Amino acid sequence: MSNNNATSVPEAYPMNGGDGTYSYTKNSSYQRAAANVAKTLIDEAIAEKLDIEDFSSASSNAFRIADLGCSVGPNTFACVQNIMEAVKQKYGSQMPDFHVFFNDHAANDFNTLFASLPPERHYFAAGVPGSFHGRLFPEASLHFAHSSYATHWLSKLPEEVTNKNSPAWNKGKIYYTTSPDQVFNAFAAQFRTDMAIFLEARAKELAAGGMMVLIMQTIPDGIHQSRIPTGIMFDFLGSILMEIAKEGLISEEEVDSFNIPVYTTTPNEMAELVERNGSFSIVKMESTSPWLKVGHIVNNTPQKLARELRAGMEGVFKTHFGSDIVNQVFDRLNDKSGQLINQLESSHRQGTQLFLALKRK
Amino acid sequence: MSNNNATSVPEAYPMNGGDGTYSYTKNSSYQRAAANVAKTLIDEAIAEKLDIEDFSSASSNAFRIADLGCSVGPNTFACVQNIMEAVKQKYGSQMPDFHVFFNDHAANDFNTLFASLPPERHYFAAGVPGSFHGRLFPEASLHFAHSSYATHWLSKLPEEVTNKNSPAWNKGKIYYTTSPDQVFNAFAAQFRTDMAIFLEARAKELAAGGMMVLIMQTIPDGIHQSRIPTGIMFDFLGSILMEIAKEGLISEEEVDSFNIPVYTTTPNEMAELVERNGSFSIVKMESTSPWLKVGHIVNNTPQKLARELRAGMEGVFKTHFGSDIVNQVFDRLNDKSGQLINQLESSHRQGTQLFLALKRK
Repeated sequence: MSNNNATSVPEAYPMNGGDGTYSYTKNSSYQRAAANVAKTLIDEAIAEKLDIEDFSSASSNAFRIADLGCSVGPNTFACVQNIMEAVKQKYGSQMPDFHVFFNDHAANDFNTLFASLPPERHYFAAGVPGSFHGRLFPEASLHFAHSSYATHWLSKLPEEVTNKNSPAWNKGKIYYTTSPDQVFNAFAAQFRTDMAIFLEARAKELAAGGMMVLIMQTIPDGIHQSRIPTGIMFDFLGSILMEIAKEGLISEEEVDSFNIPVYTTTPNEMAELVERNGSFSIVKMESTSPWLKVGHIVNNTPQKLARELRAGMEGVFKTHFGSDIVNQVFDRLNDKSGQLINQLESSHRQGTQLFLALKRK
Repeated sequence: MSNNNATSVPEAYPMNGGDGTYSYTKNSSYQRAAANVAKTLIDEAIAEKLDIEDFSSASSNAFRIADLGCSVGPNTFACVQNIMEAVKQKYGSQMPDFHVFFNDHAANDFNTLFASLPPERHYFAAGVPGSFHGRLFPEASLHFAHSSYATHWLSKLPEEVTNKNSPAWNKGKIYYTTSPDQVFNAFAAQFRTDMAIFLEARAKELAAGGMMVLIMQTIPDGIHQSRIPTGIMFDFLGSILMEIAKEGLISEEEVDSFNIPVYTTTPNEMAELVERNGSFSIVKMESTSPWLKVGHIVNNTPQKLARELRAGMEGVFKTHFGSDIVNQVFDRLNDKSGQLINQLESSHRQGTQLFLALKRK
């Protein structure tokens, strides 16, 4: 039943599991800083726009919250706690039980997630395995959906990009930052298809009056992809791979055929996709700048940045190149992290995050 | 929030995870046969007693099923499928979406469970980590709870049994089969406490009119524990441990202080506990005899029996004795499995399973 709207089985790119040196659990401070930036905005959206009266006709024996693409924690626990507190702040003692659903691909490390659930939590917890590019919950059963730094992952690489004879074949690169338009267009088309499916599924699952908050990486209109931190980091990883290819450890074609299945949308594009879907009204939309806040963390310890990037990206590299090459890539990234930091410091760091609060009509 | 009714954190004794030689996934044919015996009874109970009209006042945007103590599959998937089909058989096209909750301790291998979910399932799936000796779900949110071969696990060993100076100290044994009355009484008291907590939690979670089916190992009234298959198998494992102790590989006190935290109830005792709880009416109660059906399986391949016992029990032995001794125990069990089969063949195999269908008043 899950994924029945998708044209093919969405691929999974889980963050690193467990709680070791390169785990997402220990290396997700950027995502945490991003969530902190969003906290005040979530509080305001709930205080001003959530209307619990709307739920009286639907099931209201529980207030159901879903975190979509939750990974392995601990960030997801902090997000959920924040949402719950904002809801309780507004409605006080008349609240029903909270039921919280932690969603990610079945390949996510749910064992680690479950083992690290806060023991003193004031909610009932469940894990939901499956891609959010498809249905995950019964009709009109959710009251609040949240997704932070997850919807930039595409459900799959666009087919043109994986075809050597296509004009969208991305020679010598692993991302579309400085590629021909055909490459960018293929990524953008895949994102629009994925987001249409995502919004359609959530429109069915959210009860009328329910809210959804999306926190996404974005690029301000008019800024080139090569100037924002994501573009710079992915290009940096691409140049390391090409360096390894030139040394003969992998073939250049292996690099050509590899692409990071991530897309950075713009505020205008998201607004247009929400409007086209038609089931949601935009309650709040705001660009924020978490890169300006995390600067001191990464500057003090460049290697920390390398580890964070590894925790999030290692999985997708490993599938294509295998463990040995992945170790090479991230060891070299670690050695050169000072150089990467320099590039990031002169990057465009304003407005790289979009906060989008939607209300189910 | 979970376990808030329990006096201490319940202990976890997960079945073997993964899908290897000794995994529960590959070694749970006894539990499957037991579930098959129960299938017809579940079908009848649903057809005759489930009243979906009762749910109109509660949330009915989904029909919510929970399997409590589900382990890692595949048995739980077959059980859930069966329940769904019986419900659909009765109500036809007016059914809302099914939402299925797979529950077990957080230490259960949920990653394996999620990876093996039937791809063509017609329900929305979620995993719920936590002990069923405590609350797991919001108030009045479930419509059908199911638990098969799980509630015989105690939430913990009774304290008296772990105290060397207590009359309930179980010298030279690992189960209460042939122990002094004080040992048996301590196990029985723990079970009654646990079952009271279990029933109280489920009474809160099930919507009025909701059903609960418990499939449990039982002992018929008037039959001695040493004559039923469970008692025989646990005594057999105990004698292997004492043999290892006599060879000096472990101390006898290590055996004395080890007890299998399992209790086999009687039909009368369960009926009394349900009545004392007061929130459920007994819809159907029947003793069945799955040991008579699995006879041909275990007779043909004695080693299969040894593997099945290992898949279910290895965890609790390993915690106390460590991996080396556990390997010794189960290797010796494997070598002697023919002897164990002989004992089982002359055991009392009638009425060792209780089917209990309850309805939330």
